[in-house]
Amino acid sequence: MRSLLPVLAVLGGIVMLFAATMLVPLAFAFLGGDAALYAYDGAIAITFTSGLALYLLGRRSRRELQPRDGFLLVSLVWTVLPVFGALPLLFHIEGLSFTDAYFEAASGLTTTGATVLTGLERLPLSINVWRCLMVFIGGMGILVLAVAILPLLGVGGSQLFKAETPGPMKDQKLTPRIAETARGLWTIYFVMALACFLAYRLAGMSWADAFMHMCTTVSLGGFAAYDASFGAFDSPAIELVATVFMLLAGINFALYFVAWRRRSLRGLWRDLEARVYFALLAAAVAGLTLYLMAHRVYPDLGQTLRHTAFHVVSIATTTGFATRDYAQWPPFAPLLLLFLSCFTCCAGSTGGGIKLIRSLLLMKSAQREFKRLVHPRAVVPITLGGAAVDANVLQSVLAFMLVYGAVMVGATLLLLFSGLEVVTAFTAVLSSLNNTGPGLGLVGPAGTFQPLTDFQVWVCTIAMLLGRLELFSILVLFTAAFWRK
Amino acid sequence: MRSLLPVLAVLGGIVMLFAATMLVPLAFAFLGGDAALYAYDGAIAITFTSGLALYLLGRRSRRELQPRDGFLLVSLVWTVLPVFGALPLLFHIEGLSFTDAYFEAASGLTTTGATVLTGLERLPLSINVWRCLMVFIGGMGILVLAVAILPLLGVGGSQLFKAETPGPMKDQKLTPRIAETARGLWTIYFVMALACFLAYRLAGMSWADAFMHMCTTVSLGGFAAYDASFGAFDSPAIELVATVFMLLAGINFALYFVAWRRRSLRGLWRDLEARVYFALLAAAVAGLTLYLMAHRVYPDLGQTLRHTAFHVVSIATTTGFATRDYAQWPPFAPLLLLFLSCFTCCAGSTGGGIKLIRSLLLMKSAQREFKRLVHPRAVVPITLGGAAVDANVLQSVLAFMLVYGAVMVGATLLLLFSGLEVVTAFTAVLSSLNNTGPGLGLVGPAGTFQPLTDFQVWVCTIAMLLGRLELFSILVLFTAAFWRK
Ligand SMILES: [K+]
Ligand SMILES: [K+]
Repeated sequence: MRSLLPVLAVLGGIVMLFAATMLVPLAFAFLGGDAALYAYDGAIAITFTSGLALYLLGRRSRRELQPRDGFLLVSLVWTVLPVFGALPLLFHIEGLSFTDAYFEAASGLTTTGATVLTGLERLPLSINVWRCLMVFIGGMGILVLAVAILPLLGVGGSQLFKAETPGPMKDQKLTPRIAETARGLWTIYFVMALACFLAYRLAGMSWADAFMHMCTTVSLGGFAAYDASFGAFDSPAIELVATVFMLLAGINFALYFVAWRRRSLRGLWRDLEARVYFALLAAAVAGLTLYLMAHRVYPDLGQTLRHTAFHVVSIATTTGFATRDYAQWPPFAPLLLLFLSCFTCCAGSTGGGIKLIRSLLLMKSAQREFKRLVHPRAVVPITLGGAAVDANVLQSVLAFMLVYGAVMVGATLLLLFSGLEVVTAFTAVLSSLNNTGPGLGLVGPAGTFQPLTDFQVWVCTIAMLLGRLELFSILVLFTAAFWRK
Repeated sequence: MRSLLPVLAVLGGIVMLFAATMLVPLAFAFLGGDAALYAYDGAIAITFTSGLALYLLGRRSRRELQPRDGFLLVSLVWTVLPVFGALPLLFHIEGLSFTDAYFEAASGLTTTGATVLTGLERLPLSINVWRCLMVFIGGMGILVLAVAILPLLGVGGSQLFKAETPGPMKDQKLTPRIAETARGLWTIYFVMALACFLAYRLAGMSWADAFMHMCTTVSLGGFAAYDASFGAFDSPAIELVATVFMLLAGINFALYFVAWRRRSLRGLWRDLEARVYFALLAAAVAGLTLYLMAHRVYPDLGQTLRHTAFHVVSIATTTGFATRDYAQWPPFAPLLLLFLSCFTCCAGSTGGGIKLIRSLLLMKSAQREFKRLVHPRAVVPITLGGAAVDANVLQSVLAFMLVYGAVMVGATLLLLFSGLEVVTAFTAVLSSLNNTGPGLGLVGPAGTFQPLTDFQVWVCTIAMLLGRLELFSILVLFTAAFWRK
């Protein structure tokens, strides 16, 4: 039996830091004198004390963490933090169940952006700030997870994410220590956040709106401070800003990191995944614009293009903002959006889903099979960006895809079993597992996850967590082999 | 550029034999003096002449067929025969389009059993005989395809189907020559058909009904001579007979072949796939019975069990008979049935879908990934029934699964694009690709494929053919490598 204790010390430290971030909504509440002012001191006290207790509990057994501890740590971080993140919501919003509060916090910290709350504009500003800040913090965690931790653990072939960055990455490895990588990634993330914040302000948002929606844009999170999401602004300028920053945030942050260290954007232009990402999105916008024009959904090309571009980028990057109820478009359109959300995001971004590079590898692996059928004795290696892909990495990616499919089907059957109709069940799972936010049916862009029963909410919560931790990090904890010495 | 000609000679021979089978409905029409009597002589003449022409065209270039020719041959057989199989329908049914007639014939020959016809009971007996006979003939073809040809071509890891049969198969290979294997398989098939025929008659069907429904039972085809399918009989005895023979026909016929040669059933009891098959079906029947009882769908346990057992076996084995409109059951139930239809049939049967043995292998492959995460340096071989599975076979199976998923998603998007709503689109594709027959929505057990547009019917037809030929046999023809010398 492995010991939990060394991991708990680190978790305790993270929980204490998380408590500190609650000072931000507290400051908003204090300065604005809003009704939720007294929701934070209790939350901060409980969170900090719990973190301290965890730290003290684990301190004695503290040792250098081994890779295997990583599975436990990341799983604990993303399942435990929502408990504390839920506290301000529980303390302020009367009648909110723990199930719903945990869902909301987990949805934030996994940058899913699905909500169980309605009447967002009637909530105190500080509560919305906290919701959005959790998304921003979640994004910070995900960057480190995706670029530094998962590749180390070899989850779902994510070794690939590093190795496949062509050009500069070849002769210059990512700063080995996770802490240093984290600092680099976060600097980029903060610079992007600042630019986004100012751009939103310039485009006409209030300072507070600019802050909150910046938080949920660069993290591809998708929470908004309004029930109507970005529809509340009805501003092409704001939508343009959102689109640009969603696009930028969907790229592998390791590329930015290298570009910054090298003072050169060459690696970015040359990256296969990034190129396919832009090409795919451009094709989807063009195609869907034509489709909606043909169906005369909007009166002219300008409006059609505006709504298509915004929603394609928002859903494909798994952000989840909406300005229109695109579930009302002819059914091909919303389904195409959900389909894109499964694989469009680049690895090493804060987006969800299978990731583009895995999808490319899967396609190549299917292609190889055709060659093999014609030339049974030929050895056909699979290459990506010029380099051959290791057979183990390929098998990991294939296994990822299998488990992804199995979780999708299994969770959908659970939701059906619990009484949901098929479209809501399937898209709620799809959207949760891909960390997108909106689905279709009850959980469509005009709805929320509120109508779901507690059981259904938990299924979606688990799907969000599984998707965020790339399935294996959390599922491996349920194998006997993991716990054996 | 490869030459088509040597394959055409063989195809011509098969087409001529196919013409001969039309004598059966002709005999029924003649003896019964039905209205379609004059539909067959033209069809026979055209079919036979075309076959002869193909034979003569290819005869000069005749040579020993190479494995690669197999792809072309099986693809041609299943795409060309429906053209001729459609003729009697076109000649007799006024206003029937070629699209619909081809769909109906392809649906028969692929043992899918989806129909575009309504008012089946008002059709002349001989037309229904012909529809059902095509299913029976299709089943004969599929057995040879699945047991002898696909493993030879290495499609989708189907080498596995042979190698994994434990016990007797180890020391005694299947009769090497395809022709001899075919004779053996067909003998078993005919014995099963005869038993089924007599059992239906004893259970109360007319001779003609017993013949037609035997044709579509042992082939897991699912065509019926009545719009209400097996609901028309409303007889527990008939349903029991159908259930038993569907169950028996869902097992790998290679096992029967070996049992017959060895005069021993030991191989059958010991086969991993067959055991899982029965266990899975038993569990599904038990589980679904409880579920329907809990939802009080039927007044008592007896009726619930009767309808559950029949529909679980019918849909999971991809047969597609129905006695009740199970689409009206709470949504979990029909979706579970469709889910089962994706993978329950054993390889080497006339059933469709992924096949149980592939699914087992996929599960083991995902399992291995968990072990690998915990012990990154361990070499973990995948075994099935005691023997290690070759890495190439595993990769072929994984590639099969990827292409299966891609075709499912791609065809669904096409149907959505053409204007269908999501449930009909998805389940029409699922049901076609798995060669099941009924889906949900418009194409549910109470409906037909008639409301679909020509384009939509073609998408489903292609899905049926792709599913039947295990995707790769037909898709490989669209690669450049195949046609290179
Ligand atoms: K999101
Ligand atoms: K069928």
